[in-house]
Amino acid sequence: MRAEVISIGTELLLGQIVDTNAAYICRRLAEIGIDVFHRVTVGDNLDRAVAAIADALSRADVVITTGGLGPTEDDPTREAVARAMGLPLVVSEEARRHAESLLARAGHEAAGESAVRQARIPEGAATVDNDRGTACGFIAEKGGKAVISMPGVPGEMRGMMESTVLPYLRSRMGNAAGVILWKVLKICGRGEASVEDEVRDLLHCRTNPTVAPLVSLGEVMLRITAKAGSPEEAEAMIAPVEAEIRERLGDDVYGTDDDELQDAVVRLLAGRGLSCAVAESVTGGLIAHKLTQVPGCSAVLGLAVTSYSNEAKREILGVPAEVLERHGAVSREVAIAMAKGVLARGRADVAISTTGIAGPSGGSAKKPVGLVFVGLAWRRGVACARLSLFGTRTEIKERAARRALDLLRRHVLRRW
Amino acid sequence: MRAEVISIGTELLLGQIVDTNAAYICRRLAEIGIDVFHRVTVGDNLDRAVAAIADALSRADVVITTGGLGPTEDDPTREAVARAMGLPLVVSEEARRHAESLLARAGHEAAGESAVRQARIPEGAATVDNDRGTACGFIAEKGGKAVISMPGVPGEMRGMMESTVLPYLRSRMGNAAGVILWKVLKICGRGEASVEDEVRDLLHCRTNPTVAPLVSLGEVMLRITAKAGSPEEAEAMIAPVEAEIRERLGDDVYGTDDDELQDAVVRLLAGRGLSCAVAESVTGGLIAHKLTQVPGCSAVLGLAVTSYSNEAKREILGVPAEVLERHGAVSREVAIAMAKGVLARGRADVAISTTGIAGPSGGSAKKPVGLVFVGLAWRRGVACARLSLFGTRTEIKERAARRALDLLRRHVLRRW
Repeated sequence: MRAEVISIGTELLLGQIVDTNAAYICRRLAEIGIDVFHRVTVGDNLDRAVAAIADALSRADVVITTGGLGPTEDDPTREAVARAMGLPLVVSEEARRHAESLLARAGHEAAGESAVRQARIPEGAATVDNDRGTACGFIAEKGGKAVISMPGVPGEMRGMMESTVLPYLRSRMGNAAGVILWKVLKICGRGEASVEDEVRDLLHCRTNPTVAPLVSLGEVMLRITAKAGSPEEAEAMIAPVEAEIRERLGDDVYGTDDDELQDAVVRLLAGRGLSCAVAESVTGGLIAHKLTQVPGCSAVLGLAVTSYSNEAKREILGVPAEVLERHGAVSREVAIAMAKGVLARGRADVAISTTGIAGPSGGSAKKPVGLVFVGLAWRRGVACARLSLFGTRTEIKERAARRALDLLRRHVLRRW
Repeated sequence: MRAEVISIGTELLLGQIVDTNAAYICRRLAEIGIDVFHRVTVGDNLDRAVAAIADALSRADVVITTGGLGPTEDDPTREAVARAMGLPLVVSEEARRHAESLLARAGHEAAGESAVRQARIPEGAATVDNDRGTACGFIAEKGGKAVISMPGVPGEMRGMMESTVLPYLRSRMGNAAGVILWKVLKICGRGEASVEDEVRDLLHCRTNPTVAPLVSLGEVMLRITAKAGSPEEAEAMIAPVEAEIRERLGDDVYGTDDDELQDAVVRLLAGRGLSCAVAESVTGGLIAHKLTQVPGCSAVLGLAVTSYSNEAKREILGVPAEVLERHGAVSREVAIAMAKGVLARGRADVAISTTGIAGPSGGSAKKPVGLVFVGLAWRRGVACARLSLFGTRTEIKERAARRALDLLRRHVLRRW
């Protein structure tokens, strides 16, 4: 089965909002084995919406639209679908009552009129209930093809997809279709080119499953995608490829799918009964924030200090004044002293620290923007890494925090 | 001038990534008065890419593509543009050298071959330099129309848009076109319904400028959009509407456009020569992270402590053991003691603190997930707010951090 997705809304064409709906719908369709070859966005314009729907119907079995179902004159979708399919619009009494009761409850003036507008559907179409809003959606069929229309509000659309649209599509497909499943291996400590060199034969010689590299803000991932008759079959196809990649990349693979580095770190520390502490200067709380995103992190993290000023480095972390004076706050010596200080203050098993220059100003020839030292301290030793990062202030903070978490992860993997 | 935007990439059609590029390009085009009536996404498929480009060229003066410029066989864009425009592909020597030197530096095998693939452009096209990556873009013209192709990596695409593509489009348009400008007023401390009640007459009775509400993770914004002959004229149309809204909403408007609450807070503290300190439990470093996103924040923030454990609350912040014992870590008393403690330790003018339950577990009937206390301390007093937040762990942290920053902002506005 082939589907196309049409997003309707002038705000999308003005770039005022990012279209997350289309990605969501495409992902859910891929998971049940429906192919999508085109996605189109048009504004709140009746003629262009009619043309886009008619075009899509000429190529696909199912057309899914989002947006343009509201009560205003500008909302073109109901009319556009009816025209593109050659069907008259009728009012669904059930949808009208639903909209009117919600609108009246919210104290909306002219609730009746708005409700009628939002309850119009092509003749013969089935309404799709909207638990979270006033506008009903619908599924209209004609000549073996279908148009499914949902509102553009993401929460409303998702509710309708899950409760009604996906079950409809599954039953329409019967058992003929396959599924597409994928697994993402998350990697750190290697650049894209180095990962590609390691797995080049897997990237280019395979058609099912395929292996594709992805890059996001300095992080490299490999996605293994399998097309099969059932989820179990797809998983069985993915497993040996995953094992092969893990064999080649070793500790550089820190997790899968939605895992973040901090998930791997908290899991690893908790599994070994270790606690950590954090002292941040250049990352300014970001490492603590990342770690505390992980449920259960209180078992491993007791104390994190953001010591932006030299006084805080001295007084809270016990960095000696003469070390600050001789080497400057951005130095290997201060990074190590910060890590040692927070290790002691937090009575932790292992501690990491960061100090550096995130910019945009504050750099010099000797200590440029992007220079970062990551300190590591445990009861019997210390270590330090010097990084030269690039990017905006936000990117430098992000990259430094990731590198620090990765150093901690590798240290624990090696030592404990 | 009319433009269309085509996003090329199978990953987009599988919903594996969200297309932020198209929104960015549309926004920048709208700002200089270029109309976009269609946006299309196709996969890495040569025939469909050719058809999409040819279709778009039949409707628009300029077609902008992103994605599909990489070195692999799968990347169809160079070939597709050449076919759709009826031009042969040639190798740009300059682009080849750029790609080869970057690839060789990264230790890439077969750098020469990859470089040649990424340096191919339609004959007669101008290359668009890519400061951040190996693949050049290009601007190809024929018969009064143009196709502009850029990579899909957002940072690379944005750099090329700003440095080359927008100046090219501006010079191509001359002074004929109008502009669409908008200004977003950022609001906190009020729900959407309350904001709408305050400005309902502005939302529904205006056509130019228009006023529209936006909501994102509990934050409400109002966008004023004006269409005019020049940026100056549009700004003059926006100004009185902005003044009217500010008059009605007062301190609830904390900033405009890309301003975040932390920008408003740092600006306010710096302007009054005040310093702040932060003690976080439930927000786990997020407030510090937000504040340190703002360049120059070191002038106002010296110390932030994430005291996740009771020991850290006692030992670093001086929260009395009997207060922790009697009231529990999630209590008004502990929030206030944390704020007082970090105020003293950081020698700051004002301090905020958070303690609460972010979930997903750890809640009880008396202290449910989402219960948060925000403490505030200054030299001559203390205050505390009790919040009942909802959402995921991430959302609770985010909402608690925002509310804490907003309480700090309002306190400083009132007292200093």
